Amino acid sequence: MLDDKSLNLTSVASLGEFGLIDKITKNFSSKDASLLMGPGDDAAVYQLEGNRVLVSTTDILAEGVHFDLSYVPMQHLGYKSVVVNLSDIYAMNAKPFGVLVNIAFSNRFSVEAIETLYDGIHSACEFYGISLLGGDTSSSRAGLVITVTALGFGEKDKIAYRSGAKETDLICVSGDLGAAFAGLQVLEREKAVFIKNPEVQPDLSGFEYCVNRQLKPEARKDIIEEIENLGLKLTSMIDVSDGLASELHHICAMSKKGATIYQDKVPIDHVTISAADTFKISQITYALNGGEDYELLFTVPVTSFDIIKAHPDISIIGHITSPDRGVKLITNSAQEVEIPFGGFNHFGNPN
Amino acid sequence: MLDDKSLNLTSVASLGEFGLIDKITKNFSSKDASLLMGPGDDAAVYQLEGNRVLVSTTDILAEGVHFDLSYVPMQHLGYKSVVVNLSDIYAMNAKPFGVLVNIAFSNRFSVEAIETLYDGIHSACEFYGISLLGGDTSSSRAGLVITVTALGFGEKDKIAYRSGAKETDLICVSGDLGAAFAGLQVLEREKAVFIKNPEVQPDLSGFEYCVNRQLKPEARKDIIEEIENLGLKLTSMIDVSDGLASELHHICAMSKKGATIYQDKVPIDHVTISAADTFKISQITYALNGGEDYELLFTVPVTSFDIIKAHPDISIIGHITSPDRGVKLITNSAQEVEIPFGGFNHFGNPN
Repeated sequence: MLDDKSLNLTSVASLGEFGLIDKITKNFSSKDASLLMGPGDDAAVYQLEGNRVLVSTTDILAEGVHFDLSYVPMQHLGYKSVVVNLSDIYAMNAKPFGVLVNIAFSNRFSVEAIETLYDGIHSACEFYGISLLGGDTSSSRAGLVITVTALGFGEKDKIAYRSGAKETDLICVSGDLGAAFAGLQVLEREKAVFIKNPEVQPDLSGFEYCVNRQLKPEARKDIIEEIENLGLKLTSMIDVSDGLASELHHICAMSKKGATIYQDKVPIDHVTISAADTFKISQITYALNGGEDYELLFTVPVTSFDIIKAHPDISIIGHITSPDRGVKLITNSAQEVEIPFGGFNHFGNPN
Repeated sequence: MLDDKSLNLTSVASLGEFGLIDKITKNFSSKDASLLMGPGDDAAVYQLEGNRVLVSTTDILAEGVHFDLSYVPMQHLGYKSVVVNLSDIYAMNAKPFGVLVNIAFSNRFSVEAIETLYDGIHSACEFYGISLLGGDTSSSRAGLVITVTALGFGEKDKIAYRSGAKETDLICVSGDLGAAFAGLQVLEREKAVFIKNPEVQPDLSGFEYCVNRQLKPEARKDIIEEIENLGLKLTSMIDVSDGLASELHHICAMSKKGATIYQDKVPIDHVTISAADTFKISQITYALNGGEDYELLFTVPVTSFDIIKAHPDISIIGHITSPDRGVKLITNSAQEVEIPFGGFNHFGNPN
């Protein structure tokens, strides 16, 4: 069962995560007519009574892959592990009510460390007004693995899938993008300094906003409430966990559409811009490829323009096009360039 | 955040899994009146419309803790990872409709190995008539960690908690006990032989029943259907995952009662008896402490005696007593002995 080149087995790295997920879920088909959406969106959607639906999602956070305990405090990690799942519930335009939490950890973790992790999980439950439903703990061979399942309720006719975007729809995003990845770079820089000289205190000054976005992100519960208050009819939605480029491609692929966004409309905080200068990376690359912002990317009919145009926390960054137009960025110098799905490398000049 | 004896931190092994869970969940309290049962039973119970409730549970299977890939086939592992969670849904007298599956694995696993694991997950979904709702994959630092969340529906007035057992209630168990642990011992014996001499083929002959109970257990969907058909009113239920002793103590603790069971009534298969002879372990120890049988342990009013007494797949093993009587076994030589809690503690030293 183990990888062996003589057996011509395929490495997961060569296939990529999305390729692997496609491969392993392709045989699953549900005969249950109540299952409105299985794997393939931010969360699954299951029909309950009347217009009510149950929404469920799950995510892994693995040490050495999703977090580095040399600079991530356990309490923040617990908080974030809940938030990233709630974000997927909100991304369906639904509201979470509970989480189930699993942790597997090696014997290098003390009871106190695990309690601190749960303090963070508890804070997130309190802040978002949800319940801990259950969970399991186990030892592991190495490292810490956290998996959280979040459950929520929505209204069937208001659920926002990735697949509903229509041509001419406005593409909107909440908050600002790229900060979480900029924060990660600051933390990695300070870790490298610390390894060279453990006497030096980490210098995060000026970048606190980005560092906080990386260590203690929030899910946009407020935006979902705002969408309801404004009476916005969403045609599609996804949360920005892997970066704007990837999420835009998901919406276009699932909706069978194209998209054009404008560089000067993509919201980027001034601290992120300052980090981009420091690390000699273009701001738009942060926004497109950074990931972990947990903002909401959604589309609305163009008739909603007047409702959204002056909203302080929602930016209109472009519009949906026909599929043959592809996924495009109009740069600040008015060039139209393709946004590749996987990585956005060597695009243009910094700024 | 790491364990450091100079800081007087507590090792998880010293506290045990149940102690740890008590400690980390004690601060969580839900303000949600719809949450009828949070952590502390086989599954959480959440009120939906009318008499309908949502039941949810999650479990971890970690390599080196819950399974050994030197003798557990990936397909069986996938199957079992679903079954152990469905068993918790059935143990509430509810019916599962879906699972969310997370896997974290190191780079020694090939795409083909992961596909085989999912073949097993798929088989279990087909057999139990449930849907794959979603999931996540990630790399890990070492080993394979699988977490499954199962969701089901039940009727509020038929949900069987651990806490409802009444004095004089009959204690019943489905199927037979101890076989899964006997199977594990056979597999461990053959692994030791193989390590000494890789030319020797594993000899499982005569013990196939036990080995199968270990590698490919089933959840007792049929017993839940039978309970419904027979019109049995359950007062409490739990699934036998950690061994009869541990589960009986859970029911007694949650119901604030005692229990007396009879050694000669505890159902043990003749193959398990033969394994007990081979490994020089008493049969009743297998049944009490073995674990992983995934049978259902439940209590019913004594008035149900006539309905159950001749059932081929349900054994009446004893009755519920007042709490001061403790948890007791009447041995074959008519001695009354206390049953220690002694559940499987996978954080601690097995000896």
